[in-house]
Amino acid sequence: MRAVLALDAGGTSTRALVVEAGGRCLGFGRSGSGNPVSSGPDEAAGSLAASALAALATARCAPGDVELVLLAAAGAGSPAHREGLTRRLADAGLTGRLVFASDLLATFCSGTHLLAGYGLIAGTGAAAVRVVDGRQDGVADGLGWLLGDEGSGFWIGHQVVRAVLADLDGRGRPTALTAALRERLQVADDLPPRQAAEAITRVLYLARPVRLADLAVLAFEAAGDPVADGVVAGAARGLATTLRAVTAPEVDGPVVLGGGVLGRSRVLRDAVLSTYADGGPRPETLVVQDGAVGAGVLALRHAGLTVDEPVFATLAASVGSLRGSGGH
Amino acid sequence: MRAVLALDAGGTSTRALVVEAGGRCLGFGRSGSGNPVSSGPDEAAGSLAASALAALATARCAPGDVELVLLAAAGAGSPAHREGLTRRLADAGLTGRLVFASDLLATFCSGTHLLAGYGLIAGTGAAAVRVVDGRQDGVADGLGWLLGDEGSGFWIGHQVVRAVLADLDGRGRPTALTAALRERLQVADDLPPRQAAEAITRVLYLARPVRLADLAVLAFEAAGDPVADGVVAGAARGLATTLRAVTAPEVDGPVVLGGGVLGRSRVLRDAVLSTYADGGPRPETLVVQDGAVGAGVLALRHAGLTVDEPVFATLAASVGSLRGSGGH
Repeated sequence: MRAVLALDAGGTSTRALVVEAGGRCLGFGRSGSGNPVSSGPDEAAGSLAASALAALATARCAPGDVELVLLAAAGAGSPAHREGLTRRLADAGLTGRLVFASDLLATFCSGTHLLAGYGLIAGTGAAAVRVVDGRQDGVADGLGWLLGDEGSGFWIGHQVVRAVLADLDGRGRPTALTAALRERLQVADDLPPRQAAEAITRVLYLARPVRLADLAVLAFEAAGDPVADGVVAGAARGLATTLRAVTAPEVDGPVVLGGGVLGRSRVLRDAVLSTYADGGPRPETLVVQDGAVGAGVLALRHAGLTVDEPVFATLAASVGSLRGSGGH
Repeated sequence: MRAVLALDAGGTSTRALVVEAGGRCLGFGRSGSGNPVSSGPDEAAGSLAASALAALATARCAPGDVELVLLAAAGAGSPAHREGLTRRLADAGLTGRLVFASDLLATFCSGTHLLAGYGLIAGTGAAAVRVVDGRQDGVADGLGWLLGDEGSGFWIGHQVVRAVLADLDGRGRPTALTAALRERLQVADDLPPRQAAEAITRVLYLARPVRLADLAVLAFEAAGDPVADGVVAGAARGLATTLRAVTAPEVDGPVVLGGGVLGRSRVLRDAVLSTYADGGPRPETLVVQDGAVGAGVLALRHAGLTVDEPVFATLAASVGSLRGSGGH
């Protein structure tokens, strides 16, 4: 084998890795959204190609030396997206076999070389996965901002805004979130409560609903405020329920926690695990940044290689060092 | 005074009334959405003009005999909408003075000639109003499907879908709502639960989010199912909280209940009132269909007339009889 290319496509950014057989990551690239749903298929395919070329450049690797390209993406990419992407990669000289994998599975594989266990991901959206024999064996939630994604960044940001509007409107408890959101949205200090509620509403209806995820951070910054803590506790309950929905007594393995919200907040992770354990022992957990390392693991496996503990350690360490050295 | 024309513009339909000084409704017309937000300003102005002409035709009244036109609409119409509407009405020969009123106030005035009290409206959206001296003195909620409208038709439909998806996904309790929604959306019977959840999600993301309000009816039809009853109880809590937010101890008067959801469901009205009363005496309530009669009341008042109990009774009875006789 010469090398494999792994792409980890997210709604905010995309990561690309060139990996050699022993697990060493030779090149790392990053670009914008690789999710055709959030940014359109053209822009997504362009981002993926750009991150791929950046990774190849760092690796000093010719596109023709890549024997397999693996794309980890939500829903593993629609047929139209797959076709457009294949064309785009071929244009860039990447003619190796193209395979697709679930972004949830890639997140799980970012945390462990083991072939069984669970993944719980909360970024803008939220979902859980059960992994058996290295494959996705069951999924819960991940049903999008309007109908699912309980406990996700969107869910938290949405609850923050609803709590603030209820406070301003006299329907809810006073909360420190109100001053924080007014400041963030630059609502004039002297605007009376009801008018402030209407001003906040006007501003937020102009943006795409999913952008409420950007306001999730306010809940964590206001830690100690009972309403803010209540929102975080509600998110933890939602995420614990989602993880429980994929838990099967016969499947034993670590729980990998990832995604922009769960990956960054120790408070949320602790709350999820204590709700999930419900007084019993907590499961073994691993925290990952994203699905980059896991996409590399899956690419190696698709190329017929075994990813055991030493190969996984080599991969994780070399990705980490390329990221740290300005490769990100 | 010759006659006044009252328009009650809703998101689904618009009602027009020609009313003479004594309160008798001479003509009634109805057409489509008169809300510029839900149907665009052109279509809204067209609907309003069409219902006005229909009412004038039934009344055998010439447009030139109308001395005042009152439009009751959410937010009382934006400046652009007011301008477009003025032009459209002038084109139809309606050159009488045009005045605007809140749809919440019109709903209150549909129930009583009294000048003080409260209105609670739940249709697609939900809001409460406090009325003092015949004017809107305070409002709560009405902040739209994404950020407010607690207990509204949207809120109920949204909770129904979330409960069904949680059931199918193993995250929530089994509920009779699941079979009802599968049937309504024609999801194949043999599709396994997780695939059914994904199929429902795909279908519903294709429509505008606010259309989830159409599914509120499932919660009422499944009465007796604990999950469905829980959704209705949650809506009642939200609406009672909204009503409480406008309640002022010094303002005494009836509570007018209206809107497509609250107006049609006695179960929801009872639940709202018992939550609101919290063991104490229930307020005096009146149930109305929409803001048509109230728009007539407000038009007469704007023309300088007093609407007392006999005038109100004449107006309400004559609107009712014109509606009943095919005028709707």
